[in-house]
Amino acid sequence: MAETTTLHTIALDVMGGDDAPGIVLEGAQIFCKQNSDCSFLLFGDNEQIAPLLEKHKELKARSKVFHTTATISGSDKPSTALRKSRHSSMGMAINAVKEGQAHAMVSAGNTGALMGIAKFMLRTLPGIERPAIATAMPSKKDTFVMLDLGANVDCDADNLFQFAVMGDAFARVLLKRKHPKIGLLNIGTEQAKGNEVVRTTADMLRSLGNNLNFKGFVEGDTMSEGVVDVVVTDGFSGNIALKTAEGTAKMCMSYLQNAYRQTPLAWLGFIFSIPAFKKMVKKLDPRLHNGAMFLGINGIVIKSHGGTDGKGFANAIKVARRMAENNINMHITQELERFEKALYEAEEQDEVKTKL
Amino acid sequence: MAETTTLHTIALDVMGGDDAPGIVLEGAQIFCKQNSDCSFLLFGDNEQIAPLLEKHKELKARSKVFHTTATISGSDKPSTALRKSRHSSMGMAINAVKEGQAHAMVSAGNTGALMGIAKFMLRTLPGIERPAIATAMPSKKDTFVMLDLGANVDCDADNLFQFAVMGDAFARVLLKRKHPKIGLLNIGTEQAKGNEVVRTTADMLRSLGNNLNFKGFVEGDTMSEGVVDVVVTDGFSGNIALKTAEGTAKMCMSYLQNAYRQTPLAWLGFIFSIPAFKKMVKKLDPRLHNGAMFLGINGIVIKSHGGTDGKGFANAIKVARRMAENNINMHITQELERFEKALYEAEEQDEVKTKL
Repeated sequence: MAETTTLHTIALDVMGGDDAPGIVLEGAQIFCKQNSDCSFLLFGDNEQIAPLLEKHKELKARSKVFHTTATISGSDKPSTALRKSRHSSMGMAINAVKEGQAHAMVSAGNTGALMGIAKFMLRTLPGIERPAIATAMPSKKDTFVMLDLGANVDCDADNLFQFAVMGDAFARVLLKRKHPKIGLLNIGTEQAKGNEVVRTTADMLRSLGNNLNFKGFVEGDTMSEGVVDVVVTDGFSGNIALKTAEGTAKMCMSYLQNAYRQTPLAWLGFIFSIPAFKKMVKKLDPRLHNGAMFLGINGIVIKSHGGTDGKGFANAIKVARRMAENNINMHITQELERFEKALYEAEEQDEVKTKL
Repeated sequence: MAETTTLHTIALDVMGGDDAPGIVLEGAQIFCKQNSDCSFLLFGDNEQIAPLLEKHKELKARSKVFHTTATISGSDKPSTALRKSRHSSMGMAINAVKEGQAHAMVSAGNTGALMGIAKFMLRTLPGIERPAIATAMPSKKDTFVMLDLGANVDCDADNLFQFAVMGDAFARVLLKRKHPKIGLLNIGTEQAKGNEVVRTTADMLRSLGNNLNFKGFVEGDTMSEGVVDVVVTDGFSGNIALKTAEGTAKMCMSYLQNAYRQTPLAWLGFIFSIPAFKKMVKKLDPRLHNGAMFLGINGIVIKSHGGTDGKGFANAIKVARRMAENNINMHITQELERFEKALYEAEEQDEVKTKL
């Protein structure tokens, strides 16, 4: 057997998610079969983990179990979760990132609790006021990134400006876009549209000039056409857009399925259409876009969808590995510094012009 | 030929929309062929209208042309539109409603201008602070109504409360639901979720008790499952949700079309699937949901999508007719009075409880 080089260590909250620990370990096993460059720290109940690891030989060979029976449930409030954090599987996995034992962590558990503990233990990156949740979404053309997806209900222009900077770095690393096109979600593309916050943010982003590939406002429909690589918005609108897109895609699939069931001829059509149908399902498959990053946290924390399966969880691990190997947080810190300098210079120039 | 009774008169802005006046007259003609209970006042350039009417005999027999060459373009700001309003096709059609010559008006023109002129000429209904744009949307189960879709970027709880009341009346009339289920769009269903405005609105709606069938918060994905009949939200989130749903549905269709094109077998599958496919397209067809109402305006003003075709415009006329024959604005005024009384009583009871 060829020797494998372990480059990255990933901490897993084995007890988080609807079907934990089963799907977490299954996901890690799927990942191990495809990749040989990661090892795992598994946090959770060893009585449940040990028998499952017997079935997942590849994972077992590359992981270490840290036993705890304390877990954070889906209904725990962030405050309760914080109290439990030290001994819970979620908190211990985050702590492993803090202590430098792991390069990243993945959890399919309670989003609010995960954000709360991550912020408390790891703090935010220098210069970042508020972390944002970002994920990849399918577009007609390819894939784009959207943030914030629900961490910040009310945002000011400074927050959205920072989201744009973080989204830019995230798209470079995750989607390998060299100069990602950035769009600000609004209810029209004209400069006068929308509220005060989006208009001020747009002015700030415009003043960065060539530093950022800012394309102005985008709307809910052009977004899914793939006109930009990054869609920036507050957590309220972002969450609604994400869930509306998920809901509508499901609705379309259900219409089609119902239509096929109605006549024998349609059913025959369905049989011949299976390959085409599979391709569409694959394009829309939320598992292939699973893995949202808590951008702005001083450490790599990836949230998997709570109801995903092994394949989906494996994708969240891939996101974690990609962020770790590309040192996403160094990119964000450097870009933020550079962009804020450019913004400051633009403001100074404006002042000089006003004086002249 | 049987004599027809003309019950309602509808004013049409013949010059508004991307393909006006062609699609406007085509739409009215489609409507006339299916319905004999409306007559039309046509506002626009007679030189363009007259030759088209020669092709639309049924419409010609039931309409009167009011000539004007002044039009409001898609790029006119509301202030410019207001100045032009008196002599423009859009303004004259609204004025016909004001003067009681028409029961309702329909325009596929500039939304901002239409709202501005309608508010200026017709004013709002007694007790309504701000009008909202409402339309029907497809859900997995059937159809639901959403408002506001973009008229009000920033809303307070009083605005959202009034939107709920107007949405309730609109759903009763348009969707014929007896006791419409009302949901408030949010980023979670728990009472503590979201921002101050949605939480306060929810408290107000809850205190109405049985007066309103309030079902609490709904999310972007459950909305398209059809869990409620009316989705209430501010114009920013509403516009984003509406356009995201439209964009995602288009994306799904485009994926499927691409998939079918890839192999001859898939193409064969497509041929057999055409009837099923047509059913899905029909369910999602935006033309069948065309016709948004400016709720809260003291007169019936219906906005058609600017890029629709004759079939879509005919549907917008149907919405206008339905609203006129059911006297939607009387319903709204009565319900608002009843609900505000209930709200006031609930507040008084609360005060009594606090004193005891």
